[in-house]
Amino acid sequence: MTENTTGTHSEHQVVVVGGGFGGLYCAQALRSTPVKVTLIDRRNFHLFQPLLYQVATGGLSPANIAAPLRTIFNYQNNARVLMAEVTGFDVAGKKVLTKDGAAIPFDTLVVATGSTYHYFGKDEWAPLAPGLKTLEDATEIRRRVLSAFERAEREPDPAVRKRLLTFVVVGGGPTGVEMAGTISELARYTLRHDFRVIDPATARVLLVEGHPHVIPTFHEKLQKKAAEMLATIGVEVWNNCHVEAISPDAVTVCMSTTKEKRQIETQTVVWAAGVKASPLGKFLADAIGGGIEVDRSGRVAVGPDCSIAGHPNLFVLGDLALQKGADGKPLPGLAPVAMQQGRYAADVIRRRVKGESAPGPFHYWDKGTMATIGRSRAVAEAGPFRFSGLLAWLAWLFIHIMYLAQFSNRVLVLLQWIWNYMSRNRSALLITNERPAQGFDQGVKPAAK
Amino acid sequence: MTENTTGTHSEHQVVVVGGGFGGLYCAQALRSTPVKVTLIDRRNFHLFQPLLYQVATGGLSPANIAAPLRTIFNYQNNARVLMAEVTGFDVAGKKVLTKDGAAIPFDTLVVATGSTYHYFGKDEWAPLAPGLKTLEDATEIRRRVLSAFERAEREPDPAVRKRLLTFVVVGGGPTGVEMAGTISELARYTLRHDFRVIDPATARVLLVEGHPHVIPTFHEKLQKKAAEMLATIGVEVWNNCHVEAISPDAVTVCMSTTKEKRQIETQTVVWAAGVKASPLGKFLADAIGGGIEVDRSGRVAVGPDCSIAGHPNLFVLGDLALQKGADGKPLPGLAPVAMQQGRYAADVIRRRVKGESAPGPFHYWDKGTMATIGRSRAVAEAGPFRFSGLLAWLAWLFIHIMYLAQFSNRVLVLLQWIWNYMSRNRSALLITNERPAQGFDQGVKPAAK
Repeated sequence: MTENTTGTHSEHQVVVVGGGFGGLYCAQALRSTPVKVTLIDRRNFHLFQPLLYQVATGGLSPANIAAPLRTIFNYQNNARVLMAEVTGFDVAGKKVLTKDGAAIPFDTLVVATGSTYHYFGKDEWAPLAPGLKTLEDATEIRRRVLSAFERAEREPDPAVRKRLLTFVVVGGGPTGVEMAGTISELARYTLRHDFRVIDPATARVLLVEGHPHVIPTFHEKLQKKAAEMLATIGVEVWNNCHVEAISPDAVTVCMSTTKEKRQIETQTVVWAAGVKASPLGKFLADAIGGGIEVDRSGRVAVGPDCSIAGHPNLFVLGDLALQKGADGKPLPGLAPVAMQQGRYAADVIRRRVKGESAPGPFHYWDKGTMATIGRSRAVAEAGPFRFSGLLAWLAWLFIHIMYLAQFSNRVLVLLQWIWNYMSRNRSALLITNERPAQGFDQGVKPAAK
Repeated sequence: MTENTTGTHSEHQVVVVGGGFGGLYCAQALRSTPVKVTLIDRRNFHLFQPLLYQVATGGLSPANIAAPLRTIFNYQNNARVLMAEVTGFDVAGKKVLTKDGAAIPFDTLVVATGSTYHYFGKDEWAPLAPGLKTLEDATEIRRRVLSAFERAEREPDPAVRKRLLTFVVVGGGPTGVEMAGTISELARYTLRHDFRVIDPATARVLLVEGHPHVIPTFHEKLQKKAAEMLATIGVEVWNNCHVEAISPDAVTVCMSTTKEKRQIETQTVVWAAGVKASPLGKFLADAIGGGIEVDRSGRVAVGPDCSIAGHPNLFVLGDLALQKGADGKPLPGLAPVAMQQGRYAADVIRRRVKGESAPGPFHYWDKGTMATIGRSRAVAEAGPFRFSGLLAWLAWLFIHIMYLAQFSNRVLVLLQWIWNYMSRNRSALLITNERPAQGFDQGVKPAAK
């Protein structure tokens, strides 16, 4: 059935695996190309990951940063969406294999399934220190952060209270900086009138980073600015600091310069260090046979046209791809890279199907990167330009809204943000999913007197 | 610690258990009374339950209908909020007992913990047929409804596809009618361009009701109108119909007039029949000792001043209370009843603390009830007035927004609704929580070719 539903077999079938920035932009850019596009994702929505930290701190709701894929492709006649979990590839037979046993045929395959968090072999840390990749991660972190304040309010023992009011973010890249800054603001501003026993402003927020500076990929001057802003906002930054152990009650770190070990008593840890590629990269490489380069993170090497060497009909995009930039270094795992690769790959496919000459090699146009620190500060660099403070934050806001604009969320997100900004992020401060949905009260047992 | 944090012991301590309509309105109405109020709830937010069905069908987000309790009580100086699970009462010692071992002292106790779904002894139906009482229930139903369409799109077997596209709502009261109508509209309008294989408009939505008519508590004329509107919107109504069995693949019903049994093949069942009171009613009655009337549903009998006979400092409100109305019948479990009882009980407490005379007996001012059927139709009755159609729907909209207004959600909910209305409910059509948040990819295994 799946083999016949996309029209005559003579039409070129493009199967795109992954509805993130890479896959989505590729599938959309094929709208006027005489191909049939099948977009497959495990979820039914496209997630705007850069704003997950807002959901994790109760500033935005999941629906503000997620756009249902079917809505996006509603009127793209040559595209269909399949919600399915891809479990492998039959490269020789040109099929994508899914968990429920279906095999979706392709002429051209685009794999863009992104990355997930990497615990450097310590997978047991995952439940203790959630990363921030999915909506469920974000609402789970939100639940833990808000619950910590709630429990502290009820807690008679000052030592336990202190532990509950200590938050550790591991990883000082943009995600970690954004999380730490927002948790600190939550404590010092948003929640400040909410409690009667505790003073939330006494909460301690630590940001632990292995490099000598936060946001190590940014220019030195911006690293300094970011550090200053974090200090102003109340975040303690520990640089040159590696995590050695995580338990439900504490994090043990090692200061790499002095080899000193320190233990931080905490019950809320957020992981924003280390990513690795989705396992589908390796599955694809294995399915091809030998000789495909896959790096330690699981990224699949692709050539200048975003396809695997020797397999021009197999494209890998975004965080899953290992592609060298103009400077010979691998392109970073950033949203704009995936978006541009997506559009580029669509261009390659379109020209090929139409019998036109191939475009030049892919060139990443680095329009700059940004990181926010709290509700009115950010750092941004674009080429030789660097700026920080409120101006950078407004630029960040504008750019993010413009990107979300395409999915009809723009007005709502803008209004929600204006609302949040003025009311200091109260609307989505919900603790949910503490108990599974059962439709039935779990039967609280009466307490002994 | 909990005994000393609310000021001197000589101040009158009012403990309100439950942050729903009854408890919330009571606690708020005590703002100018010289008492200390402690509001305890298992959740950190007040939930506007009448709109849960909108979350369950992806029309609104959880944050649109939930207001964090701490935000509500931010500036009420005599009130504090405790997020805790109450497990019992020490009536003699005047303490409320919580799961983490704390004992919160009271001079006056107000218990308003509401109701939950009742499966008439068949608790095993609960995971198969979720009710609609909590946010998690709503997002779980949303997940099941949307996933059914997704799975049908991938399903090669027409019999299975038909089963996936059959939805059963059990219970034809306002909640059931609202759910069935909205699922039907979702299928016939909202999702109609979203799929390529299935035609969502062919989905079958059945509403199963034990009485001869839907909304049996409404006037006969409105029952007819509602039935007509449901038919227009594509809902099949089976009256005089009781559920005998629910399995993952089917629902078996018995037609009470003919004794005929029918089996409906379905994988999505929503429970909107039968409620029972929270177990805390019985715990309170047991804690008092003997002689307190508790009905079969678990509701605690209260006198004309909303307190338990012989215990003027113990109030029970809302769905948990069994109180006779002017006509001698028990007051219904509706939001306006709980709200009015909450304000009334606060008045009783205020006068008592100030040494003033007690107010007259509680009198429920029935301002009317409504039920919506889809996005532009409703039925409403207020005293001798009955109306239906678009006018009733606009009245419903206005009243609900006014109630939500108090929690600062008004502008946002209004805008979200306008947006939803114009875009036909797309924004929150997310399938979430299929996999628990782990911060770690679960390691998809490669499929055999």
